[in-house]
This record gives sequence, C-alpha cells and structure tokens, in this order.
Amino acid sequence: MRYELYYWPGIPGRGEFIRLALEDAGADYVDVARDAAAGGMDALGRYLDGDATNQPPFAPPFLKAGQVVVSHVANILQFLAPRLGQIPDDEATRLWAHGLQLTITDFTAEIHDAHHPLGPGLYYEDQQAEAARRAATFVEERLPKFLHYFERVLQCNPGGDSFLVGEAHSYVDTSLFHIMAGLRYAFPNATRAIEPEIPGVAALAERVAQRNNIAAYLDSPRRQAFNEHGIFRHYPELDSA
Amino acid sequence: MRYELYYWPGIPGRGEFIRLALEDAGADYVDVARDAAAGGMDALGRYLDGDATNQPPFAPPFLKAGQVVVSHVANILQFLAPRLGQIPDDEATRLWAHGLQLTITDFTAEIHDAHHPLGPGLYYEDQQAEAARRAATFVEERLPKFLHYFERVLQCNPGGDSFLVGEAHSYVDTSLFHIMAGLRYAFPNATRAIEPEIPGVAALAERVAQRNNIAAYLDSPRRQAFNEHGIFRHYPELDSA
Repeated sequence: MRYELYYWPGIPGRGEFIRLALEDAGADYVDVARDAAAGGMDALGRYLDGDATNQPPFAPPFLKAGQVVVSHVANILQFLAPRLGQIPDDEATRLWAHGLQLTITDFTAEIHDAHHPLGPGLYYEDQQAEAARRAATFVEERLPKFLHYFERVLQCNPGGDSFLVGEAHSYVDTSLFHIMAGLRYAFPNATRAIEPEIPGVAALAERVAQRNNIAAYLDSPRRQAFNEHGIFRHYPELDSA
Repeated sequence: MRYELYYWPGIPGRGEFIRLALEDAGADYVDVARDAAAGGMDALGRYLDGDATNQPPFAPPFLKAGQVVVSHVANILQFLAPRLGQIPDDEATRLWAHGLQLTITDFTAEIHDAHHPLGPGLYYEDQQAEAARRAATFVEERLPKFLHYFERVLQCNPGGDSFLVGEAHSYVDTSLFHIMAGLRYAFPNATRAIEPEIPGVAALAERVAQRNNIAAYLDSPRRQAFNEHGIFRHYPELDSA
C-alpha cells in the first residue's frame, strides 16, 4: 500500500503528525502537494473543491489509502496505527489512545491560538496585542496544565512510565514528541522552565527522537524546519522572559 | 448496558452531543454529575483527579460503559454509534462520519472562541473588546465557511441530501441539529440571514427535531436551556445587526 498524504507545502503543520507516524513505520507514502510528479497542489485542490470525491474534506491534512479518504489528524492516525503496528489490538486500548490523541489535537489548537487569538482570518501583525494577552495565560496556565496532564498519564500507566499507552511505543508517543519539539522551538524559555516538572515527558521525547527511523527522518530533507507560517512559531515577545 | 455520562452540570455544553445520541436511541443512561444518587460531582471529580482510574480523562465529557472509559465527544460518539444503531457497519463510512464529527468539534471550538478569544482563563467581561473583533470575523467568514461546507456535503451525498452520511439518519445528523439549535440561540440574526443559503442543513435540523425520541427529549426537563455559561451564548453585541 502506497499512502498519499495531502497537506499544505511549506510548513510542518498538522501534516507532521502523520509524516512522523509513516516515517517511524518505514511506510511507503507520497507527500502529494510537495511532489509535482504526484500532482502537487492541483491534486490537493481537487479534493477540497469536491471534484475528486463526493466526500470532500473540510481541510488538510487528509490521507488517501486505496479508495478510502480519511481526514483530521487523529482520525488518520487511528486508521493508520493498526496497519503500521503502532497500537495494540484491543478496543479499550485504542479508545484510550484516540482520546489522548484528541487531547493533543486540542493542545495543538491552543498552541496555534497563542499567536492567532482572533482566528485564522487575520495576520499575526494585526492581532499582536491580543496575542500578547493570550500567550501570557497560555504560558502560565494552559501549557503547564497540558504538560502536567501527560506527565500524570505516564506516571499512572500500569505499563510503565516510558510509554503513554500500555507497555510499548505507540503513535501517541510519536505525536507527543512532536509537541515537545515544537514547544522547544516556539517557547524555548517557558519550555525549559517547565521541563524539570515533567521528567517523564522529556525522557519520552528524547527516546522517540532516537528511534532509528525517526532519527533518520529528522536528518533528512523531508523534515521541514519550523517557521513563522505554521502552528509552532517563535515570536520572542510571546515567550516567557 | 446502562451508560454513565460524566459532564459539568448547569449547561448543555459538549455533553449535549452525547445526551442527544443516547436519547435518540432510547438508551439507558445516567447523567452522573446531575444525579446525586449516582454520585454527583464527587463521582466526576474522582475521574479527573485519577483516583477512580489509571486512565484519567483530560476533561469532561467522558462516558463509562462497563469497564471502558471513553473521553472526547467525537470518540464517545464513534464508540456509541454502532451500539446504538446510528451508523452503518463498514469502515469507510465510519471514517467519513468521524471526520465530519471532528469538523463539528472544530466548529464548536470556534463558536466558543467567538466569546472567549483569549482562552478559558478569563471571563467574557475581561475580553469583551477582543470578543467583538473575533465575533465579527466569525460571523462574516467562519460561520458561512462551516455551514456552506455541510450544505455541500449534503448536496454531494450519493445517498441523498436528507442525510450527511449514506442513506439513513446517523449520529452526525443529530450533532449538526444541535449546532443549528445553538447558533439560532447565540447568533439569531446571523443564522437567520444565512439560512436561505443552506436549505439542506435547515431541513435536516427540522427533521431531526421531529424524530420521536428527540422531540420528547426536547420537551422534557432533562433538556437544559442554553445559557451564558456554556458554549452557545447569546450576547447581542456579538451577533450581526
């Protein structure tokens, strides 16, 4: 199976959670919008305008696997994970993993909204004062709330504090690694300050980064750098001092 | 099976999407935090602080079904729907429905953020100026974008424009009904203005409201009124003129 990932080119963005899962498994995939031979942006557009499907996604990322089109990061990951060997078989474990991934979805939205509190329709420069207020409460309240939560999930996992789910690496670990990488880029001071309080999360991120396929991917040209067009943006004025 | 729903009392909130699915199916359930005999708020608290589980939810709503605890609205609905007969069997249809429900999740978050652009940590009164700016772009851009999307999904459904998914009522239709009910409460002018552009969505909402179990529920004391503590808040200054 050759998977087709559709996501905006130029940013890691929400597509990166999917890329990391595919790369970790060594799966065969094409990043369509970044690959002119695969159709590039035109191919992506034909799904959004409904020409290519009668089940049009609201927004990227979406994944095509044979005749199936799956949209939304958490939905794509719960579809892929059993096929890629990144989650155990039983339903209760999968529901728990999907719930954790949906909390990562919410966390991702709040990280984005720290620089775009008035929504996606305005540039950062047009909402900079509002972003300063929102980022202050994000750094003081929301960032610790989410990271302490994931630390608690690790600490009360009967399978040990090396994994969020059960006794082995899962796709949720990979996603949490990406959150930590993004936070270290976007809010280096705030993240450095809180890391001593979340030793399990910090160790998990380190372990995932050293997995063979992930390490190779991070060193490859396929891995795009964080930048100020994506979710994780480094605006020093929004970080803590 | 007696399902246990855990959600904050006093508002319909995100718990309402779950209540509506359970009510539509005539399922046996208890709304724990609103029922002192079932344990009330103390029972809810024991899940959030981790005393009752080693898989603590990040936030309500969550659902207990036997020994399984499921959190996040869309996750709960994809768990319940096959058991309640609210979605067909095949995987491709379920993935499509779940993707639509996750778009409803995102829409719900943007409806909330129209009155809380600086996040949940501040009262509306402390972010009223920012809410006015955010609500203006919400009403002009985001509300039409989401509603036109769902209209398009209805119009290109091979199963007919009466349903979002396939050829029969599904849990996603019920959730979209609730969105429309909430929008009519929170943004009556903006919603009235756009309804002629979304005849399929308006007709779907009407049809769901007339389903026997839904109509009985809406008339019962179990249905809580929208109010200014929940997601859908009527602040006339945020609506269009």
